[in-house]
Amino acid sequence: MAKNLTKRSEDYSKWYNELVIQADLAENSGVRGCMVIKPYGYAIWERMQAELDRMFKETGHVNAYFPVFIPKSYFSKEASHVDGFAKECAVVTHYRLKNDPNGKGVIVDPDAKLEEELIVRPTSETIIWDTYRKWIQSYRDLPLLINQWANVVRWEMRTRLFLRTAEFLWQEGHTAHATRQEAVEEAEKMLEVYAHFAENYMAIPVIKGVKTESERFAGALETYCIEALMQDGKALQAGTSHFLGQNFAKAFDVKFAAKDGKLDYVWATSWGVSTRLMGALIMTHSDDNGLVLPPNLAPYQVVIVPIYRNQEQFDAVSKVAEKLQKELREKGLRVKFDNRDTHKPGWKFNEYELKGVPVRIAIGPKDIEKNTAELARRDTLEKEFVPMDAVVGKVEKLMQEIQTNLLKKALNYRKEHTTKVDTYDDFKDVLIHKGGFVLAHWDGTPETEERIKNETKATIRCIPLAGEKEAGTCIVTGKPSNQRVIFAKAY
Amino acid sequence: MAKNLTKRSEDYSKWYNELVIQADLAENSGVRGCMVIKPYGYAIWERMQAELDRMFKETGHVNAYFPVFIPKSYFSKEASHVDGFAKECAVVTHYRLKNDPNGKGVIVDPDAKLEEELIVRPTSETIIWDTYRKWIQSYRDLPLLINQWANVVRWEMRTRLFLRTAEFLWQEGHTAHATRQEAVEEAEKMLEVYAHFAENYMAIPVIKGVKTESERFAGALETYCIEALMQDGKALQAGTSHFLGQNFAKAFDVKFAAKDGKLDYVWATSWGVSTRLMGALIMTHSDDNGLVLPPNLAPYQVVIVPIYRNQEQFDAVSKVAEKLQKELREKGLRVKFDNRDTHKPGWKFNEYELKGVPVRIAIGPKDIEKNTAELARRDTLEKEFVPMDAVVGKVEKLMQEIQTNLLKKALNYRKEHTTKVDTYDDFKDVLIHKGGFVLAHWDGTPETEERIKNETKATIRCIPLAGEKEAGTCIVTGKPSNQRVIFAKAY
Repeated sequence: MAKNLTKRSEDYSKWYNELVIQADLAENSGVRGCMVIKPYGYAIWERMQAELDRMFKETGHVNAYFPVFIPKSYFSKEASHVDGFAKECAVVTHYRLKNDPNGKGVIVDPDAKLEEELIVRPTSETIIWDTYRKWIQSYRDLPLLINQWANVVRWEMRTRLFLRTAEFLWQEGHTAHATRQEAVEEAEKMLEVYAHFAENYMAIPVIKGVKTESERFAGALETYCIEALMQDGKALQAGTSHFLGQNFAKAFDVKFAAKDGKLDYVWATSWGVSTRLMGALIMTHSDDNGLVLPPNLAPYQVVIVPIYRNQEQFDAVSKVAEKLQKELREKGLRVKFDNRDTHKPGWKFNEYELKGVPVRIAIGPKDIEKNTAELARRDTLEKEFVPMDAVVGKVEKLMQEIQTNLLKKALNYRKEHTTKVDTYDDFKDVLIHKGGFVLAHWDGTPETEERIKNETKATIRCIPLAGEKEAGTCIVTGKPSNQRVIFAKAY
Repeated sequence: MAKNLTKRSEDYSKWYNELVIQADLAENSGVRGCMVIKPYGYAIWERMQAELDRMFKETGHVNAYFPVFIPKSYFSKEASHVDGFAKECAVVTHYRLKNDPNGKGVIVDPDAKLEEELIVRPTSETIIWDTYRKWIQSYRDLPLLINQWANVVRWEMRTRLFLRTAEFLWQEGHTAHATRQEAVEEAEKMLEVYAHFAENYMAIPVIKGVKTESERFAGALETYCIEALMQDGKALQAGTSHFLGQNFAKAFDVKFAAKDGKLDYVWATSWGVSTRLMGALIMTHSDDNGLVLPPNLAPYQVVIVPIYRNQEQFDAVSKVAEKLQKELREKGLRVKFDNRDTHKPGWKFNEYELKGVPVRIAIGPKDIEKNTAELARRDTLEKEFVPMDAVVGKVEKLMQEIQTNLLKKALNYRKEHTTKVDTYDDFKDVLIHKGGFVLAHWDGTPETEERIKNETKATIRCIPLAGEKEAGTCIVTGKPSNQRVIFAKAY
């Protein structure tokens, strides 16, 4: 694989696109805006899925599956939802093709027009709440804690691999509760799960907060979010959790009988993360040499590359490498011994650097003689020779170290790129010359938010949950404010 | 849950439909032909997925993801494929909705018509081979062993939960090889994986065979299949593996350079199983009391139900039950202690019988006194009191016993319902009065196959791979035949 990545400092966006392709993560398909997730990229997504799914189950959720199609009329039932979602979407209007009478392939059969068009789900609140109506009668049926792993489609005009695609994969949790408080607690709990996952598995530090009214999910009373900062100083929303109040219960007439017999509408949440996380993972850690993966999510945590010039050397090296592979696997590590004779060691070194494998072990005839191996860590690119009997212990330690180091580096980057400003001039200046999160006072009105957005392209990423209360004045209007909010340009 | 299942002997089809609903496996949605897979049904499917996915990976396959949409023109590229697939399908023609100017919800925006219609994938050979063209240049890129877990849509007119739905979930393997032989071996290997899964996890005995030409997958040179027999004497195709020759490589121009530099088309296979397996699982083992699950796939293998009349008894019983639950879990068993106070023990007994939990353990105050527990196995409905310190060992043994017993019962049923016939009269007679697999000689022509199908509704399920060679004459035409084939009415 010829590695010839554009440098981040040269063109960050180009670097990203090249990296996604060259590291075999994903590519564009023959269908506009839809990506193919390649095996290596999918393996990382599978690791994410496995950890998230485990966390969802540990917090009492179960999985289910709802139809990919939603009747058009469902979208009209929740007023704000339809405006937010039902517009740019894939519409199924027919259910049959037929042979072209002119012999030119196949055409849509005009006789097979659907009575009501079907929308390929952009999100599933409507079809799920239409179903919940049948499942919920009494408080005994609550809470309903359900998650779905699914593909969804939003007809985006400008797409980028992982970050914004017409079709993407995600999970969407949809829960139903007897009280407002329980639903709020659920939404907050899932935000914590997402934050825990981001920091401890993806090694991405995130700010937990709530969205302003104008950035809320269509149909939500409160949208909680985790916001991450990419290496180019732009923010990326990595996950959201919505408190939906009784909006969907009212739209789909879902009532329950409480213990005292009284009927009330059910309280709801929904929450999701998507393959967009792949974009966040790539942009947080990777460098000009390629992908850098945190050990907790790497499909292969360790790769062993044999160095040899002839069959005899190959046999000797292989014997040692296979023993080491076995020992590492017994420690629960994901290890690949790349013994292909179709590629040279240099090619392999390059390949695994590009693919971000956390630790590379090279073993050659000299190592056999000296009873050593060469260990290279991907995050710092440091190499060292390690006595063979210390390799397993060293690799185990490196897994921890690399995981911790990546989070630390990202935290440092964020710290350096988080700036408090008190004037609109400073605000604009930071956005232009430094980027990153900008902490500023805002008067709380959508008008000011909109003006700042139009003038600077920066949006309010969130009102931080852990933000300290502090009296101040809005950088634009000078009106009073009691907490700084986080502004940034965003993906 | 009020259990009031129709008896199988009364109306098998009605029994099935009721069971699927009452055991909380799936239900029809508001979208014609599309089902909702409920959490309990989905948990069984997740167990199936986990085991199959493990087996696929152990045989060298990796997962990837391809777009849900396929441009219409792709289907015209492989001539026989288009006839088999592209007709009854969901067609996306527009990408936007807009507010109805008359204020009646939303309508399709006529300005947002796609230049080329998109088909919601009924199967992915075309889009995947269009992608493989970019991935395969030389023998070094082969074999390509890729699987996808996905939803697919086929616009079926008559649908039944799990057995035939417009949308269903499945996995589809798509592999590319340098030689014909390697591709044939792959197709056969995956058939073995399916058969192993069916027999050792689903406890369903299957016949491995090949389809006749007329029953082959559209675009395949050979379709291998596993055929199972349901309790009503009808056959069900439980999985297929196709040797596709070079058909798709030719249609999508996928060539590779061999070691000697020569260019040749790539050889292909595809193979899949779907949520239809849920139907097979239900219909093979379940009885008039409800679902019967093999321990290897049961979401809960053991349920513990506390019996009590007051808080004091509940506390005493819970203490013992929780200890037992912990011990069973330490043995790797999936256990649920149902300590809900919203439902009575009788209701719970009924519920878990209906849901097919392999072993139910009841613990009451008398058991605490005597230091025993009552064990009930779902397959035989036998109950026994077991000393508390023997429960864990007994349950572990029961897991094996029940798994084995279910397969044995199904094998016995199949044996009793497999009939050799030598005349067409006997053939018809068996189909009418006994059902099951009918082994008969056939002259090998599509005409005879078609005639038998039209006259009796029986189809050739497969030409068994392990069928002994035996000279005979076709039951219809009297022409020579050297092997019996398997006929049956089928789902």
